[in-house]
Amino acid sequence: MALINENFIKIPATYLFSEIAKRVTKHQEINPEAKIIRMGIGDVTLPLPDASVDAMIKAAEEQRNAATFRGYGPEQGYAFLREAIRDNDFLSRDIDIEADEIFVSDGAKSDTGNIGDIFSADNKVAITDPSYPVYVDTNAMAGRAGEPTTAGIWTNLVYLPCNSANNFIPELPKEKVDIIYLCYPNNPTGTTLTKEQLSVWVKYAKENKAIILFDAAYEAFITEDDVPHSIYEIYGAKEVAIEFRSFSKTAGFTGTRCAYTIVPKQLMAANEKGEPVSLNKLWNRRHTTKFNGTSYVVQRAAEATYSEKGKKEVRALIDYYKENARIIREALIKTGHTVYGGINAPYVWVKTPDGLSSWEYFDLLLKEKNIVTTPGAGFGASGEGFVRFSAFGSRENTIEAMKRLE
Amino acid sequence: MALINENFIKIPATYLFSEIAKRVTKHQEINPEAKIIRMGIGDVTLPLPDASVDAMIKAAEEQRNAATFRGYGPEQGYAFLREAIRDNDFLSRDIDIEADEIFVSDGAKSDTGNIGDIFSADNKVAITDPSYPVYVDTNAMAGRAGEPTTAGIWTNLVYLPCNSANNFIPELPKEKVDIIYLCYPNNPTGTTLTKEQLSVWVKYAKENKAIILFDAAYEAFITEDDVPHSIYEIYGAKEVAIEFRSFSKTAGFTGTRCAYTIVPKQLMAANEKGEPVSLNKLWNRRHTTKFNGTSYVVQRAAEATYSEKGKKEVRALIDYYKENARIIREALIKTGHTVYGGINAPYVWVKTPDGLSSWEYFDLLLKEKNIVTTPGAGFGASGEGFVRFSAFGSRENTIEAMKRLE
Repeated sequence: MALINENFIKIPATYLFSEIAKRVTKHQEINPEAKIIRMGIGDVTLPLPDASVDAMIKAAEEQRNAATFRGYGPEQGYAFLREAIRDNDFLSRDIDIEADEIFVSDGAKSDTGNIGDIFSADNKVAITDPSYPVYVDTNAMAGRAGEPTTAGIWTNLVYLPCNSANNFIPELPKEKVDIIYLCYPNNPTGTTLTKEQLSVWVKYAKENKAIILFDAAYEAFITEDDVPHSIYEIYGAKEVAIEFRSFSKTAGFTGTRCAYTIVPKQLMAANEKGEPVSLNKLWNRRHTTKFNGTSYVVQRAAEATYSEKGKKEVRALIDYYKENARIIREALIKTGHTVYGGINAPYVWVKTPDGLSSWEYFDLLLKEKNIVTTPGAGFGASGEGFVRFSAFGSRENTIEAMKRLE
Repeated sequence: MALINENFIKIPATYLFSEIAKRVTKHQEINPEAKIIRMGIGDVTLPLPDASVDAMIKAAEEQRNAATFRGYGPEQGYAFLREAIRDNDFLSRDIDIEADEIFVSDGAKSDTGNIGDIFSADNKVAITDPSYPVYVDTNAMAGRAGEPTTAGIWTNLVYLPCNSANNFIPELPKEKVDIIYLCYPNNPTGTTLTKEQLSVWVKYAKENKAIILFDAAYEAFITEDDVPHSIYEIYGAKEVAIEFRSFSKTAGFTGTRCAYTIVPKQLMAANEKGEPVSLNKLWNRRHTTKFNGTSYVVQRAAEATYSEKGKKEVRALIDYYKENARIIREALIKTGHTVYGGINAPYVWVKTPDGLSSWEYFDLLLKEKNIVTTPGAGFGASGEGFVRFSAFGSRENTIEAMKRLE
């Protein structure tokens, strides 16, 4: 008799964004005239850079002719893209990452979800709270999370609360942990760690032989000087950290799909005898066994974001969303909200007024202002009492939404 | 201390195709003048259908403008593609598959590799021998394969030998199994099962509450009438089977990346209490948690293979490779080889002469004829004593290679 992975049915059935979609659809059905402004899901709205579209079309034309046609590429990504990433995202910041430490993929969601494959189910996992739901759900699927409680807490996960009290700087865990998920600039809170604050975690990881899974998908939104763009800016981080990057939010690739993951060659975890094993080799094995490379045309589109034209266009996209974030942030402050993030990130994290719950304020904003946010509680227990505003909308909608709040 | 997934280091380090690449590179270095013809890895050589390139360019242009830009799509695939698949690949053959039973992905390698996520590590798995290495390796990673022996056999897998003695028709396993991998038309042997022969497996699965993972990636190469294109042509198969399909070999998408998996809604496996659980729901959960959809432009390219123009072009591609397969098959027979497959599949499975091992004959063909094949032993113990010829080369190279064998 075929048996299911029992862990799957432990996961609560409602996934955050589908529940939001359901409530929005219902509201729109009841109010067909309502002009709903979506500031919930973190999807971009500006089109792809011209440089990427041009490169994609050129690559598609190559696929039309036998002489230039490309079939299977290297699972880890073409050298042209891995080298462009190395040069532009790392060497340019004096970070010494080699091309064979870069694994190109179809998305950071896939990578942060699949990375668990190479780790034992026995690792103790720490996750900042609130966090991107994929970290918790994929650990639950792998049996590392234990059992869910009615409060939405998993018994085996170590939660690192990020809240107003600690100014969204997670404290080191009291019990020893083996794997730590950190996402900075943070989704959903939009907050950051300075180099000094991140160094504390690198030191902890070294001392405890822990691995940091560092999600830097929002790196391009960093404005302030003392906020690291890569965890590898911290001395010694290559011995303790895997870093995830994405073209989704930087270059508008949410529907085009390209990302990459850095697994440094000196990064080791232990086998059951306590001997060090290269995680670069394990991830390479996973990547070549369960994945067959990112679409060639998409890799060309990603490469083009590093051309002179591409860089300018990407910068313009980021600046546009950052200006939206500024508008949201300032309008919310002006209307008496307590606000975090939005300076080095496209997300503004807002305390609900009058002690409302996340979903109560979500519903209020939806019903009275026709604005869709994301309820903070959907990102974890410490997200309760917050909603997330996304800056990825159009300028017009952003301004209009903020007017409605006045 | 972070611990690795111990199963990863049990897997033998040499992956079939990288070992081939290494030997070919060495041979080319020693013989820089040699005109090597590659009939090893199953990669296509003809370009994409014009219809797909046109659709991809049109979609790329949509991505250039905010009004037509698409960000995140449904993880399971756009309705336009799921419905085109349903209508063209299933309803046209009187198979009643619904759009929400179709999950679009970036490749059959990903899907056949990731499907294990939804099953317990305790299932007993049967795999035809020889087989596509991904089935064995991904089960090994998940801890379902047990320990590897020096003979390249895993202690917990049930192997279903396919050889000359049984005319490549696997016999039902003697011990009870829970999950069965079947690939027809078969990679690597190029052989098929008739409807009657496949019905035996559907019956077995029903009686034993087992699940069949049916890889139909080579379905388009079927010529003979009594060979099923889909396992769902067998009555009752929707209650026991998941089917994998791909655009890679049919429409030349090996570098473009699109595939799909069918998980029927009536398909159930048991939880630990023995209660039935919908695998469609579990796979949907996996797909939406660890994957963010296939690139929009790629989905449009896949959709275009179902247009009138696209269908004609795909048919021409398939016919071209089938003619190659016929040429290979007949030349090998003429030169005294014992040959299987190549009629309903792009692969010809060839007994090595004079009792040579797979790798010995591989080396001989490489060194003396400058022809690259795939050693059968790389696909499992029962592949020993065979090599695989692929029909995916150019006509010119195929004819030239066969001349060299005379």
